[in-house]
Amino acid sequence: MTVSLVKESDVDVLIVGAGPAGVMAAQGLKRAGVNVRIVDKRSKKVAAGQADGIQPRTIEVLQSYGLAARLIKEGNQMHTAAFYNPSPKGGIERTGRAPDVTAPTARYPFEITLHQGAIEAIFIDAMHEMGLDVDRPTIPASIELSEDESLLKDPQAHPLKVTLKHLEPVEGESDTEIVHAKYVVGADGAHSWVRNNFGIAMEGEQTDYVWGVVDMVPDTDFPDIRNRCAVHSNNGSCMVIPREGDVVRLYIQLTDTDVRNVETGRVDMNKCSPEKLIEVARKSFHPYSIKPSGDIQWWTIYIIGQRVASKFSIHERVFIAGDACHTHSPKAGQGMNASMNDTHNLIWKLTHVLREWADPSLLKTYEFERRKYAQDLIAFDKKFSALFSGKPQTEEYAEGVSHQQFLEAFQTFGGFTSGIGIHYAESSIVNVSHQDLAKNLIIGQRMIPHIFLRAADTRPFELQDLLPADTRFKVLIFTGDVHDSAQRKKVEALAEELSQPDNFLVKHTPKGAAPYAVFDILSICSTTKVDIEYTDIPKILRPHWSKVLIDDVDNTGKVGGGGYSAYGIAPEGAIVVVRPDQYVGMVASFDKVSDLNTYFASFMAKS
Amino acid sequence: MTVSLVKESDVDVLIVGAGPAGVMAAQGLKRAGVNVRIVDKRSKKVAAGQADGIQPRTIEVLQSYGLAARLIKEGNQMHTAAFYNPSPKGGIERTGRAPDVTAPTARYPFEITLHQGAIEAIFIDAMHEMGLDVDRPTIPASIELSEDESLLKDPQAHPLKVTLKHLEPVEGESDTEIVHAKYVVGADGAHSWVRNNFGIAMEGEQTDYVWGVVDMVPDTDFPDIRNRCAVHSNNGSCMVIPREGDVVRLYIQLTDTDVRNVETGRVDMNKCSPEKLIEVARKSFHPYSIKPSGDIQWWTIYIIGQRVASKFSIHERVFIAGDACHTHSPKAGQGMNASMNDTHNLIWKLTHVLREWADPSLLKTYEFERRKYAQDLIAFDKKFSALFSGKPQTEEYAEGVSHQQFLEAFQTFGGFTSGIGIHYAESSIVNVSHQDLAKNLIIGQRMIPHIFLRAADTRPFELQDLLPADTRFKVLIFTGDVHDSAQRKKVEALAEELSQPDNFLVKHTPKGAAPYAVFDILSICSTTKVDIEYTDIPKILRPHWSKVLIDDVDNTGKVGGGGYSAYGIAPEGAIVVVRPDQYVGMVASFDKVSDLNTYFASFMAKS
Repeated sequence: MTVSLVKESDVDVLIVGAGPAGVMAAQGLKRAGVNVRIVDKRSKKVAAGQADGIQPRTIEVLQSYGLAARLIKEGNQMHTAAFYNPSPKGGIERTGRAPDVTAPTARYPFEITLHQGAIEAIFIDAMHEMGLDVDRPTIPASIELSEDESLLKDPQAHPLKVTLKHLEPVEGESDTEIVHAKYVVGADGAHSWVRNNFGIAMEGEQTDYVWGVVDMVPDTDFPDIRNRCAVHSNNGSCMVIPREGDVVRLYIQLTDTDVRNVETGRVDMNKCSPEKLIEVARKSFHPYSIKPSGDIQWWTIYIIGQRVASKFSIHERVFIAGDACHTHSPKAGQGMNASMNDTHNLIWKLTHVLREWADPSLLKTYEFERRKYAQDLIAFDKKFSALFSGKPQTEEYAEGVSHQQFLEAFQTFGGFTSGIGIHYAESSIVNVSHQDLAKNLIIGQRMIPHIFLRAADTRPFELQDLLPADTRFKVLIFTGDVHDSAQRKKVEALAEELSQPDNFLVKHTPKGAAPYAVFDILSICSTTKVDIEYTDIPKILRPHWSKVLIDDVDNTGKVGGGGYSAYGIAPEGAIVVVRPDQYVGMVASFDKVSDLNTYFASFMAKS
Repeated sequence: MTVSLVKESDVDVLIVGAGPAGVMAAQGLKRAGVNVRIVDKRSKKVAAGQADGIQPRTIEVLQSYGLAARLIKEGNQMHTAAFYNPSPKGGIERTGRAPDVTAPTARYPFEITLHQGAIEAIFIDAMHEMGLDVDRPTIPASIELSEDESLLKDPQAHPLKVTLKHLEPVEGESDTEIVHAKYVVGADGAHSWVRNNFGIAMEGEQTDYVWGVVDMVPDTDFPDIRNRCAVHSNNGSCMVIPREGDVVRLYIQLTDTDVRNVETGRVDMNKCSPEKLIEVARKSFHPYSIKPSGDIQWWTIYIIGQRVASKFSIHERVFIAGDACHTHSPKAGQGMNASMNDTHNLIWKLTHVLREWADPSLLKTYEFERRKYAQDLIAFDKKFSALFSGKPQTEEYAEGVSHQQFLEAFQTFGGFTSGIGIHYAESSIVNVSHQDLAKNLIIGQRMIPHIFLRAADTRPFELQDLLPADTRFKVLIFTGDVHDSAQRKKVEALAEELSQPDNFLVKHTPKGAAPYAVFDILSICSTTKVDIEYTDIPKILRPHWSKVLIDDVDNTGKVGGGGYSAYGIAPEGAIVVVRPDQYVGMVASFDKVSDLNTYFASFMAKS
């Protein structure tokens, strides 16, 4: 018998890469109590530059994990976009201002900008508090996935053998370690080692657009320097992205093909300099002056590539996420958002399968939902990049991009760029059969935020805050007016039915688990604050006094009310199932609890 | 030469007592960079019970120190008050519900309830982060104030010699220490040693009302258990105060004179028990049931005393604050609020005098403003306690207190009990001569909250958040519409005048200090978000790009706008001076900068 110096261990989920997709996955899985590890090849976290824009929907997602307050505290908010175009007098002039976010149901009607390192730190600190740190600098040296069908089917098996290499090993310890994992998430960026290891192809192409990026504190008389600006001049295009503190990011269109290496066709950083970028920008800003006040904080140059991975998973045991499965231009601020939302989609599915609450087939919906989204993203990016990089319309160049054209595109794509309009197609977890019962709550889209009052104390609550990312399905019982005795009888009948052991609530809650471990229940009444007595709601529909809400304005008359109509729910009520990631999964009527049973049976484990 | 074993040191301010008044003073002075110490006789901070209600205005004050977020996170909110009275069917019935807060300009339209220890911890943790901890258990053993006039007049002198006794001294060190202080704040409670030491009398009397208090998690079918309730039954009165988590506090009227010691007339805790209190409460709640679920968390009995100290200061060198200068009933939730607002009023005055920015006479306004408030508080308390403790009106007892009477009193006193209506009378720091220029901003009351947009990026801000407790006077320039060239010329003329060395801005900013060290300036324009260019505001009126606001609705159309009319300011504009404690001190017109000069010269130091 020999003693091995190489440490071997088991883990439920191994995450490769601690960028936005990786840290989102790690904090979410750790929060759910999953045995998870995360490794990253960098010895430190990102300090400056890189991606920086957080969309309205992504702020909602952070809020669902309890992480938005810090983001909002540290970040800058972009509320308004300003558009500059060639002026007949020479130079540029403002042709208009418009809301930066055009999605009317956005809870946060702005984007947040903050450098990537600060955003990652929010997740890394949250993980640290839960006892999980990034293992760095560490890379996977090899990965093997068993082909044994019985192992692949068993969620408790460890079919993955990963050899890790610690680049700065603790003295006296081996730099090599073997990890047996149930699942692996490859969140290792555009050049993903995990993706390449499994031979997953990237589909799509490189574009011809070359852009420079500069982060600086500007000294300028430009009056929109704290708004997002699209500047189209006859000397090239710029985008202004104001950031935390007094920092501003400029995206600068480079027409000079000198920045490319002629042989490889690739951008060559050595051919450019921040001074050169600023010089190009100054020409576009004329007659306004702009220059750095102090040092340039960060800069880079890039060509836009628009590609999507041909698949996002190998046997639903290895998943790739983030830049590993999609690359595109940074100008609509999508990159970090797409990445974090990939793993946000995956966290609860992995957790449910690992707990054996759900059937492993649930994991197929990850690729189904997120690959479709990535393809939509590339399609959008192609249109938007072409408009942005195109020459502006002037008297001499009538075929150029007009202010109106650009503004319309900006607003048309608002649902998409805000993340609010993301729509998952019909599947086992998106059942659209009773859409008519809540016609504004689009099944497959995220739950619309709205303020309701807590019945017991009339305190206003944003409903989204009662639907946290705690891995539970939220069953919202829109009870109608329980002060009306006929309606109350219907609610009592529903409560009686839900108590029966052959219904989903009892059936899919494992024996021995807490009664509301899998499903949380909220009752939302259309009763007024004058009449409501929360004690009128049957006990099974109110796990706690705080679980009864009413659709009424608060005491100031300024907050709340109108929820039933905003959601398109009739006074007869409805049952709305919200998935653990806050997407609407299903709607049903009180007398069709059987449809809910069918819905859950289609992907939950048989008990 | 002998070496003394007794440590001697100098301090600017010594605070005695780490209750609400003491910790408020300590964190505020420390934040302002004052050399401050705080001692307390208790070896640990309060763990449960005691005072627990924070008024709307006090939440604003905490917010001005950056401390409200934690209070809001940890505390319970009371939005609604419910009133129960004798039912003709026997027992009690609900006669109505009403908003708990009736002050229409309250930024936080609710009260927060949280046990006193948790509230004090917010301050103690903030102090700790700034490097200040409570020295405990430590008591003052003697205090001497010099009678030397020249010392008393010099703000840099240390006319106070305090001998401290450490009750648990570090081994090997003396338990005695001598502190020479410029100022002492006696925040040492109802039995104040500091007050007694200087022979300050308490004026007022004891009442006959005896009440019991119980904190518990109730098991009940009472539908308003999470609202503030005034329960008037034929079996006595109760008040329900819901608290953090599932805890509820009951105030229970005790008619039984058995709880008093016959000889002393004082309440004797040994004559009562929590079980007895619950038993009394159960009778008032009939037909609803109520009992503790688990242990009683805390309980006490008290008689209401209604007294105010004859003076609040000795030579403006020793100040008393909090319960040391006023005692009254706890039922309107005033105690902790009055205490914290005493020292909130004192912090900036002490700081300005210590920095020699202000004349020492400024300190006389502490007693002037806070003693008047304390007298109003007692007058209110007498009326409210009598109503609350009085027998309810019934068919048999027509002269009893009716629901309508009680509700009217509750609402009439709403401005006072919320703290929003507190009004400081005319003095050197409250100049009411131009009230007509901003007729809704009552000079001597706290600045009304309102949401404005930041001009540079249309981000909405609550104006109060731009008026933090940073010891600076805030000079708000309501510029009117700077897009109008005539109005803009007036604003430019004002800027020119304010740049002159004989005006207050230059005159009262010490040489060598940063330009905006004493006065912060905000320009608030009535220009629309479409037209505004923040660069149009003269530089002296915008210390930074963030210092220009506009009075317009935000991009969602739901937030902001209407500020000029809410404040009663005409399109011609006005200048509003907000004191460091957020109270409106003075209003002036653009062509009466000289009045502002006179105002500041009346209490600021001559430079």
